[in-house]
Amino acid sequence: MTFEKTAQKSVNTIRMLAADMIQKANSGHPGLPLGAAPMAYVLWKNHLRVAPNDACWINRDRFVLSAGHGSALLYAMLFLSGFRGLTLEDLKNFRQLGSKTPGHPEFGMTPGVDATTGPLGQGIANAVGMAIAEKMLSARFGKIIDHFTYVLAGDGCLMEGISSEAASIAGHLKLGKLIVLYDSNDVSLDGPTNITFTEDIQKRFESYGFHVQTVQNGDTDLDAIDKALTNAKNETGKPSLIIVKTTIGYGSPNKAGKSSSHGSPLGADEIYQIKQAFGMDPDKTFAVDGDVLEDFAKSMNRNIRLARKWKKEFGEILANDSGKAELFKELFEQGSKDLDEKIVAILPKFTNEKKIATRTANGEIVSKLASVFPWIIGGDADLSCSTKTAIKGKEWISADDFSGSNIHFGVREHAMGAVINGICYHGGFRPFSSTFFSFVDYMRPPIRLAALAGLDPVFIFTHDSLAVGEDGPTHQPVEQLASLRCIPRLNVMRPADANETAEAWHYILSHKDQPTVLVLTRQDLPVIDRTKYESAEGVLRGGYAILKNDKPDILLIATGSEVHLALEAAKLLISEGKNVQVVNIVSREIFEKQPKAYRKSVIPPAVKRRVVIEAASSFGWEKYSGISGKIISADDFGTSAPGETVLQKYGFTVENIVKTAKAMK
Amino acid sequence: MTFEKTAQKSVNTIRMLAADMIQKANSGHPGLPLGAAPMAYVLWKNHLRVAPNDACWINRDRFVLSAGHGSALLYAMLFLSGFRGLTLEDLKNFRQLGSKTPGHPEFGMTPGVDATTGPLGQGIANAVGMAIAEKMLSARFGKIIDHFTYVLAGDGCLMEGISSEAASIAGHLKLGKLIVLYDSNDVSLDGPTNITFTEDIQKRFESYGFHVQTVQNGDTDLDAIDKALTNAKNETGKPSLIIVKTTIGYGSPNKAGKSSSHGSPLGADEIYQIKQAFGMDPDKTFAVDGDVLEDFAKSMNRNIRLARKWKKEFGEILANDSGKAELFKELFEQGSKDLDEKIVAILPKFTNEKKIATRTANGEIVSKLASVFPWIIGGDADLSCSTKTAIKGKEWISADDFSGSNIHFGVREHAMGAVINGICYHGGFRPFSSTFFSFVDYMRPPIRLAALAGLDPVFIFTHDSLAVGEDGPTHQPVEQLASLRCIPRLNVMRPADANETAEAWHYILSHKDQPTVLVLTRQDLPVIDRTKYESAEGVLRGGYAILKNDKPDILLIATGSEVHLALEAAKLLISEGKNVQVVNIVSREIFEKQPKAYRKSVIPPAVKRRVVIEAASSFGWEKYSGISGKIISADDFGTSAPGETVLQKYGFTVENIVKTAKAMK
Repeated sequence: MTFEKTAQKSVNTIRMLAADMIQKANSGHPGLPLGAAPMAYVLWKNHLRVAPNDACWINRDRFVLSAGHGSALLYAMLFLSGFRGLTLEDLKNFRQLGSKTPGHPEFGMTPGVDATTGPLGQGIANAVGMAIAEKMLSARFGKIIDHFTYVLAGDGCLMEGISSEAASIAGHLKLGKLIVLYDSNDVSLDGPTNITFTEDIQKRFESYGFHVQTVQNGDTDLDAIDKALTNAKNETGKPSLIIVKTTIGYGSPNKAGKSSSHGSPLGADEIYQIKQAFGMDPDKTFAVDGDVLEDFAKSMNRNIRLARKWKKEFGEILANDSGKAELFKELFEQGSKDLDEKIVAILPKFTNEKKIATRTANGEIVSKLASVFPWIIGGDADLSCSTKTAIKGKEWISADDFSGSNIHFGVREHAMGAVINGICYHGGFRPFSSTFFSFVDYMRPPIRLAALAGLDPVFIFTHDSLAVGEDGPTHQPVEQLASLRCIPRLNVMRPADANETAEAWHYILSHKDQPTVLVLTRQDLPVIDRTKYESAEGVLRGGYAILKNDKPDILLIATGSEVHLALEAAKLLISEGKNVQVVNIVSREIFEKQPKAYRKSVIPPAVKRRVVIEAASSFGWEKYSGISGKIISADDFGTSAPGETVLQKYGFTVENIVKTAKAMK
Repeated sequence: MTFEKTAQKSVNTIRMLAADMIQKANSGHPGLPLGAAPMAYVLWKNHLRVAPNDACWINRDRFVLSAGHGSALLYAMLFLSGFRGLTLEDLKNFRQLGSKTPGHPEFGMTPGVDATTGPLGQGIANAVGMAIAEKMLSARFGKIIDHFTYVLAGDGCLMEGISSEAASIAGHLKLGKLIVLYDSNDVSLDGPTNITFTEDIQKRFESYGFHVQTVQNGDTDLDAIDKALTNAKNETGKPSLIIVKTTIGYGSPNKAGKSSSHGSPLGADEIYQIKQAFGMDPDKTFAVDGDVLEDFAKSMNRNIRLARKWKKEFGEILANDSGKAELFKELFEQGSKDLDEKIVAILPKFTNEKKIATRTANGEIVSKLASVFPWIIGGDADLSCSTKTAIKGKEWISADDFSGSNIHFGVREHAMGAVINGICYHGGFRPFSSTFFSFVDYMRPPIRLAALAGLDPVFIFTHDSLAVGEDGPTHQPVEQLASLRCIPRLNVMRPADANETAEAWHYILSHKDQPTVLVLTRQDLPVIDRTKYESAEGVLRGGYAILKNDKPDILLIATGSEVHLALEAAKLLISEGKNVQVVNIVSREIFEKQPKAYRKSVIPPAVKRRVVIEAASSFGWEKYSGISGKIISADDFGTSAPGETVLQKYGFTVENIVKTAKAMK
C-alpha cells in the first residue's frame, strides 16, 4: 500500500506530540520517538490489529515497546489511535503523579500498553512469551487465534544478554508471528554505538534462525518499512528482525544524530525550529490536526470492524463446540465459584509413611493440578529432571506442535522469567518456571517486573538451602530468601513438608494478583503427622502455630526444612517442662496481611524468648525475633560437603536449638 | 606436534581419576571430564603455560573452567601437573568438608584455580576480563606481558545471555589471546541439546568477530585439537572459539552420549567396565602410572623453565627502567606504607557553598584517585555521562590501544560485573563498574561471586532511590539496598554527601579483601557543614553519630540523602527541648564489625525511641529500630513523578520525621 499525502504529516505529528510531552514534563527521552515515529506509524497504519474501543481484545496483535524509555512515542500512538480512556490531557500530564502516562510504560496504567518495560531487553523476551501463548492457544482453538506480536527494540535491548537468550528460544520454536523492529540509530547514551557495539546483528539473528531484513532509510522511506513488515508477516516459518536504520532525534537541527537527543528534553527553541522545518505552526504545542486524526481513524475503524467480526466468528465456534467453550472459559477465567472445592478435591494428600522432598511432592502436585486446570503450564531451565516440575501426561511444546504444556527453556533463566511474564501478559495461561534456587539471581529482573506489573506467574526454585551440600557455595542459597522477601508485592513461600507444598498451591491458585516464588528442598523431609500437629491449612494464613501452647514462654519460629528441627527441639524442651510454641512461617508476606489479633495469637508480643531458625541469612528476621531473641542462621556462604555435614557445621541441629532456647533469659 | 604413545593413556588416566573422585564422593558430574579430557590434555600438554611450582606467576596463561561442574577434571589436571600443595589425598577428599577440592572450583581454595565458577556463563566473562587485563598490562610494560587466556565452556555456558554479552565485548576489543574451547557434546541435563538449543554457534560467534573452528572428533583426535589450538594462537587479531565435538561420558558403555552421565556418579560397575575397556586395571582406583606422571612432567618442566626465564627477563626490564619498576610495584601491591597518607592528601575536600550530587562528587574523586593510583580503572554500561564515572585525563581502551583506563562495556551490565571480576582475578588493577542502581539486578550473580571469591572490585551505582523521580518505578530502586546487604562478605556504602563519598573511597582503598557496592544519588545534596556536625571520617567506622547527644532520648537513624532530612528534623526537635542523636549508617557491614562499646555509643541500647529513615525498603531495619521503633521507608514500588513529589508522597519529609518521633512513647 502506498501512503497518502497525510502520512508524512501524521509522522511529524507523532514526533512533535512526543517532543511536546517531554518538554512539558521537562523529562524524558525524545531521541527514540523522533527517529522511530515512521516505523511506528507504518505499523499502526497498515499492520497492527488493535481495537481502540477494546484494548483487551484477546486476538489483538500485541505491541511491546522494549525500548521503554521511548514511552512518549507509545502514548502518542495510543492517543492518536483513539484508545478509549486516553486523552490529550493525559499526554500533557506525562510523567506526573497519578497520570496515565508514566515515565516508562506500565501494564495496567494505560489502555493499550501490553507490557511494563524500561529495563532493557525484557520486552523482547516478554514478546517471545506472547508469541508462544498465541501458538499454544492456536493449537487449542484452531486458526481463529491468529495474531502477530510486534516489538520495537533499540540498541540497548540488543546488547543485553536476555535478548540473545530470548531470540534463541524464538528461533528454535520458529515463532513466525514474532516481528522485531530494531530502531538502529547507531547512537546510545554515551555516544556512537561503535564505541562498543560492532557485532554483525544480521548474522547474529540469522544464527538464531531469524529472518532478517534491513530498511536503509527509516527516517522517511515509509514504503520500505511497509514492504519489510509485509515480508516479515509472510515469512511464517521464522521470527523476523527488521533492522530499521534511523536518525536519533530526527529533525532536530542541533541534536539529530547525537546522543544529546537521547535522554533529555530538546529545549523549547529546538522544538520550535523542528516544527518550522516540518511546516508546522511552531507556536502551537500538542497540536493535532483533524486530517491526522482521520488518517488514524481510517485504520482503527477497520480494526474495530475486524475485531467485531472476529468476536462474532469466535462466538460461533464456541457456540458450536462445548468443549472449546468450556476450555475458553477455563483458560480466560482461571477459576470459577467452585475453584476452591476443585482445588481441595484434586490436591494429593501425603501420608507420613515415607520421607519425601518438597520438590518431589511439588512435581506430583503440579501434574495433578495441571490435569484438571488446563491453564497451568510451565517449563524449566534445563533442569526438569532435577526440579521435577515436568507436567506428567502433557507434551513438551516444539516448533511443530504447541499443544503441550511443558516448555524447554534451556539454560536461560533470565529469558525464562521474562518469557513466562510474557505469557501472563498475553492471557490464557498461568505459567510457572523452575530452576535451582541459587540461580534466582539470574532472573531477578523479571521477578521484580512481575511484581510491579501485577502478573501472577509461579517461580519455582528447588535445592533451597545449605542442605544442597556437595555442590558447594555457588549452589547453596544463603541470602536469596531475604533478597526476595524485600521485593514489594512478591509472595515468597517456603513450605515445611509435602502437604504444606500442596497448601501453598492451594493459596497460589486462589490468588491471582501477584507472583509467587515457591522455594523447595532437594533433600527428603518427613511428612509431618498432622494428628500430632496443627493442620497444614495454616499455610493459607502464611504463618501459623504448628505446635500450640496456651501460655508459651518460648517461641521457636522456623520455615521450611527447619520446622522439623524446631518440632524435635520443642519435644525435648517440653520434656524438660518448658512451654513451647512452634511457629511455622511459610510466607511472611501472607502472614503479615493477616489481622493483628491472629498474628498476636501466633507470635504473642509478650513472649520475648524467641528463636528463629532458618538455614539462610538472618537478614530481616529481627522483625520476628525481636532484639532480645536469637536467630540461628547462615550469615556466611556455605561450603562444599555432604548436606547434613554442612547443616551441622552451621548449627542447624536440634541440640543447638535447644541450647540456644535454654540460654535465653 | 604429534603425540607420544603415552598420550592416550594420560587422557584415560585423567578420565578415570575424575570418575573415581566423583564415585568416592558419591556426588559430582562425570560427563564433562570424560568427554573433555582430550582437549584438556592437549591444552595442558602442548599449550598452557603454567608453572606448578608458582601457581601465581603473573604471566602464566590463565585457564577458566567456565563449566565449573566439571571441577573433577580440573583437579585431576592440576594434580597430574604437579601443582604444589595438591595431593592425591586431596583428590580423594573431593567435595568433603574442608577439602581443597570443593564441588565447584573456588578461587583461593586450590592452587592453580584461576576463578570461582559454577553459575554458568560467568567464566567466559571472567576470561574476557583476564584477557583485557593482559592487554592493558602489555600496553604498559611492553610485550614481555604476553599470555593467553583459555576457557573451557559447555552448552549451558553458551546458552546463558552473559556469554553473548561477553563475547560481543571480546570481539569488539579484538581480544586475540582469548581462546574458548567449547565442549560441544549435544547433551545437557534434560536430554539432547536439540530440544532447545539449535542456533548456529559458528555463525553466532562469527557475528561477534570471533575466529571459529570445529574439531569433529574431540574424543580421540588429539592432533586435530592440537592443530586448532595452534591456529587459534596464531590468529591474534580475533578471539577464538574452538567447537570441539565430544561424547559426554565418553567410554561409559551404558551412559556415554546420554544425559544420565551428566550430573551423577557413574556407579562402581560402570567405572569397572570403562577401565577394562581402556585397558586399565579395573580393580584399582585413583591409579596414576609413572609414565603418565612423566608425560605431564615433561611439559611442566618446560613451563617451569619458561617461567624462570620470563622472571629473569622481566626483572632485567624493571631493573633498567625505574618508571616501569615503580609502576609494577604500584599495580601489583596497590598500596604501600604511606597509602593512607597518599589517599588523604589526594582526596578532594568539598565545601558547603553549593549543592552537589554524590554521583558528581564521586566522579571528581575517582578521577583524582586514578591520577595518582594507576591501578584504578573502570567502566560503565553506556551511562558514563549520567553516572559520571569516566576517569578524566585517561583514554578509553579500544581494540587498537589498551593504554587507557576507561572501558566502554555497552548496555551489558551482567558481563560488566563478571568482566571486572576477571580483571581482579588477573591482578594488576582494581576495577570499578557503574550503572543505575535499579539495574543492579542485572548483575547480581557476579556481585555474589566477587564476595564469595574475595575479590575487591567497586560496583558503583548512581540514581539511588525514589528521588530518581520521573523515570518511574522501573528505574526507582526500592528493595535493592536490602537485597545487597544480605549478601555475605559484601560491603554496601551509601554516603550522605560529597565528603562522605570521599571517605567511602578512603575506606575502600584501605581495604582489599571484599567487594564494595557504592550507592550514590542522582539529585544534588547539600554538603554537610562539618563545623556544626561530626567529621565525615566517621564513615571509616561504617556508622557514626553525626549529631551527638550526651543523653539522647530520641535516635534518628538515617543513610544517604535521608541524613539531611534527619538533621533538619533534629533541629526542630531540639528546639522543642528534645535530646536527639542523629546516627548516620553509611555501611551496616563496616559498622557491625566495630567494637561493641563503639556501637553502643552510637546506638545506645537504652534509647528505645528510634526512627530509621531510608528512602527504600524497611526490610532488615528492625535490627536497628527495635520492635518499639519506627521506620520511615518505601515498602512499595515508587511512582513516576518529579523526585521531590515522590519523596513527599512516600513520607520522606522533615515534618513526617518530626511527627513520627514525637508520636513515639
